[in-house]
Amino acid sequence: MTILDFDRLERGRRAFAEVMTFPAPRDASPATSSMLDFVYAEVWQRPVLTRRDRRFVTLACVAAADAEVPLRDHVYAALNSGDVSIVEMQETVLHFAVYGGWPKASRFNMVVDEQWERINGERGRPVPPPASLLPLSTPSDPEARLSVGEQSFKDINCLPYAPARDNPYQGAGILNFVFGEMWLRPGLGMRQRRLVTVACVAFQDAPYPILSHVYAALKSRDLSFDEMDELALHFAAYYGWPKAAHLNDVIGSQKRRVLAEWDAEKRADGA
Amino acid sequence: MTILDFDRLERGRRAFAEVMTFPAPRDASPATSSMLDFVYAEVWQRPVLTRRDRRFVTLACVAAADAEVPLRDHVYAALNSGDVSIVEMQETVLHFAVYGGWPKASRFNMVVDEQWERINGERGRPVPPPASLLPLSTPSDPEARLSVGEQSFKDINCLPYAPARDNPYQGAGILNFVFGEMWLRPGLGMRQRRLVTVACVAFQDAPYPILSHVYAALKSRDLSFDEMDELALHFAAYYGWPKAAHLNDVIGSQKRRVLAEWDAEKRADGA
Amino acid sequence: MTILDFDRLERGRRAFAEVMTFPAPRDASPATSSMLDFVYAEVWQRPVLTRRDRRFVTLACVAAADAEVPLRDHVYAALNSGDVSIVEMQETVLHFAVYGGWPKASRFNMVVDEQWERINGERGRPVPPPASLLPLSTPSDPEARLSVGEQSFKDINCLPYAPARDNPYQGAGILNFVFGEMWLRPGLGMRQRRLVTVACVAFQDAPYPILSHVYAALKSRDLSFDEMDELALHFAAYYGWPKAAHLNDVIGSQKRRVLAEWDAEKRADGA
Repeated sequence: MTILDFDRLERGRRAFAEVMTFPAPRDASPATSSMLDFVYAEVWQRPVLTRRDRRFVTLACVAAADAEVPLRDHVYAALNSGDVSIVEMQETVLHFAVYGGWPKASRFNMVVDEQWERINGERGRPVPPPASLLPLSTPSDPEARLSVGEQSFKDINCLPYAPARDNPYQGAGILNFVFGEMWLRPGLGMRQRRLVTVACVAFQDAPYPILSHVYAALKSRDLSFDEMDELALHFAAYYGWPKAAHLNDVIGSQKRRVLAEWDAEKRADGA
Repeated sequence: MTILDFDRLERGRRAFAEVMTFPAPRDASPATSSMLDFVYAEVWQRPVLTRRDRRFVTLACVAAADAEVPLRDHVYAALNSGDVSIVEMQETVLHFAVYGGWPKASRFNMVVDEQWERINGERGRPVPPPASLLPLSTPSDPEARLSVGEQSFKDINCLPYAPARDNPYQGAGILNFVFGEMWLRPGLGMRQRRLVTVACVAFQDAPYPILSHVYAALKSRDLSFDEMDELALHFAAYYGWPKAAHLNDVIGSQKRRVLAEWDAEKRADGA
Repeated sequence: MTILDFDRLERGRRAFAEVMTFPAPRDASPATSSMLDFVYAEVWQRPVLTRRDRRFVTLACVAAADAEVPLRDHVYAALNSGDVSIVEMQETVLHFAVYGGWPKASRFNMVVDEQWERINGERGRPVPPPASLLPLSTPSDPEARLSVGEQSFKDINCLPYAPARDNPYQGAGILNFVFGEMWLRPGLGMRQRRLVTVACVAFQDAPYPILSHVYAALKSRDLSFDEMDELALHFAAYYGWPKAAHLNDVIGSQKRRVLAEWDAEKRADGA
C-alpha cells in the first residue's frame, strides 16, 4: 500500500464522517471503499452545490431506492447536521410523495419521525410539538383553488398555459392539489423544491416531466446552468449512471432551449 | 418445430389477439414466444380474476414500468375491448398518480388521451366531450375535508384510527387529498381501486403500505383470498418474480391476520 | 390433480432445489406454482446461457427489486453453488452500485456479507480475510486517470470518441471513476460485467444507456446474438414482461446496426 492510496482511504473516511455526522464503516469491500473514495471524498466535496443543496437531492434518491439503512442514515445526517430543519424535512416528504409516489413516502415519513425522536433523545430534550396543519394558506373554494392552481402551474412551469380542468388527473390532481396547494405550502423554499423535483423526475424516467422540470428550474433561474450540471453528477452517485446519463442529455437540450428563449426575449426588449 | 410446439404457439397468438384486440407480434425471439405461451395463453386465461379485473392490474404495471409500447398497447386494448370505460381509465390514471408517482402518471394520462382519440378515429366518430370536474363530491371547507378524510382513512384501511393531522405528509397529503378526496371520487369502483392499489404498492416495495393495503383489501372483502392469490400471479408476469414473491409472502401473512380477526369477531358476536 | 400436473410440480420443485441449493417452498399458491413451473423448470433449464451466466442477470434484478427474501436467497445460492466466487460477488455489488445506484447496492452489500458468513458458518470454517483493496490497479494521478478513462470508455463502448471532460457528470463521474477505475478492476470478467450492465440498463429504463450497452455487448462479441436474446427472456422472468418487451425491441434494432457495421467493415477489408 502506497502512502498515497492510504491517504485516499483516510480522506474518504474523514469526508464520510463530516457529511454523515457519524464514523465511516470499517469494512473493506470494493463497494464501500469506492463509495468512501468517490462519493464522499470527491462528489460531496465539490463546489457549485452546497452540502445543504446536496442533502435534498440525496434524500429524494435514498427515499426512492427503498434501501432502509441509507434512508435512515441520510435523514439522520441532514437533521443532525442542522443543514435541514424538521419543518423542511417534513415538507420534503410531502413533495416527494407527489413526485415519487405515496407508498415510498410513507416509509420516508416514518423514518423522519424516528430519527427526529432519536436526535432529540440524544440531545436530552423532548420532541417539540408539530406545527398545526390548519389554517391552510391556499383557498378552500374549489373554483378559487383551481384558479390558484392554474396560475401557479404557469408560474412554476414557466409556461403560458395550464392544462384543461375536465380530466381527473389534470383537474382533481395537478391543478387542485399539486399546484393549487402542495407547491405553494410554506416551509420549503422554491430552490429546495426544484432540487427534490429534478431528482424525482430523473429516477421516475417518464419522458416529459424530466424535460419540463429541468427546463423550468433553469428558466426560472432557481438553479443555474452550473448547478444543474452538478446536480446530474450528484444524482449519478445516488441513483446510478444510466438514469443520470439521460438527465445529463436532457440538461444539455434544455439549456439550449432556455438560452434561445432568453436571446429572443432580449432582442424583443431591445426592439 | 413439432406439431405440439406449433399448437402452443398458435394458441398463444390467438390468446394474445383476443386480449389485446390486435394481432400478435410475428417475431420468434425467446422472450416473445414465452410471452405468448405463458402470459397470454396461460395467465390471462385463468379463472378467479376476470379479464376486466386483470386489466387494472396490468395497467398499473405497464404504467410503472416506463415501457412505451406495452403501455400504449394495454391502454388501447382495455378501452377498445370495452372492458374499461374512458371515465374509469381516467380515474385509474389519477389513482395511479398517487400510488405510482405523478411523473409516470403524466405519461399514462397522455397515452390515454392519444389512444382514446385513436379509437374514436377508428370508429369514425368525434371524441366525446369530457365530464366536468366541478362540482366536487367532497367538502371544500378544510376542517370538513379533514374529517371526511379521517373517516374514509379508517373505512378504507379497515383501521380504528387515522393519522395525526399536524404533519404535512399525513395532514395536507393523506387526509386532505388522498382519503379526503381521491379515493372518494365517483367513476371508479372500490374493487378496481383495490386492484390498482395492490399492484402499485407491490412494485413500489415500501414495506408498510404493501401490508396495509393487502390487509384492507382482504378484510373489507373487496377482494377474496383466492382473487388476491391470483393477483400475485398476474403481477408476477407483469412485474417479475422477485417483487411477486414478496407480495405472495405478504398475502400469506395478511390472510392469517384477517382470519384470526374474523374468528375473534365471530366469537365476540356469539358471546 | 392429474399425474401430469403432479409431475410438472415435482419437476419444478427439483429444478428449484438444484438452482437454489435448498428445497422449494411447499405453498401451493398460483404465484409459487407458476414460478416453479415456468421460472425454474423452464427458464433456468434453457440452453445458450449457462446457469452461472444467469446468476449475474438474476442478481442484478433481485438487487434492483428490493425484495429482501429473493435477494438473500439468490446471493446465497450463487455463492453456495460455487457458481460465483466471493470476489466476483463483491465486484458485482460495486458494478451494480454504479448502474443501479448506491442506496440499493448498500443493502446488496450487507446481504452478501451476511450470506457469506452464513455459508462459512454452515461449513464450519471462519470467514476468510478479504482481499486488500490497495494498491489499486488504475493510476492515481488525475490526468493519467482521465486518459485511462477516455481510452476504456472507447474500448468498452465500442465508440470512436469519449465525452468531454469539462462536465461534472462526464468528467468527474464517467471518465474519472466509471471507466477510469470501476470497469477496469480485476475480479470480475468482462462477460459478467456485460450481463450485469444490460440487466441494469433494462430495469433503469433510461432511453440511451440501454441502446449503447446492448450495442457494445454485441459489437464487442462479449455476448452473442443468441445469448442476448436469451438474456431478454431471463430478464422477463425477473423483471416482468413490459420492460423485457422494450429490451427485446432494443436488441432487435442493435443487432441490425451491428450486422450493418460488420458488413461494412468486411467490405472495407475486402476492398
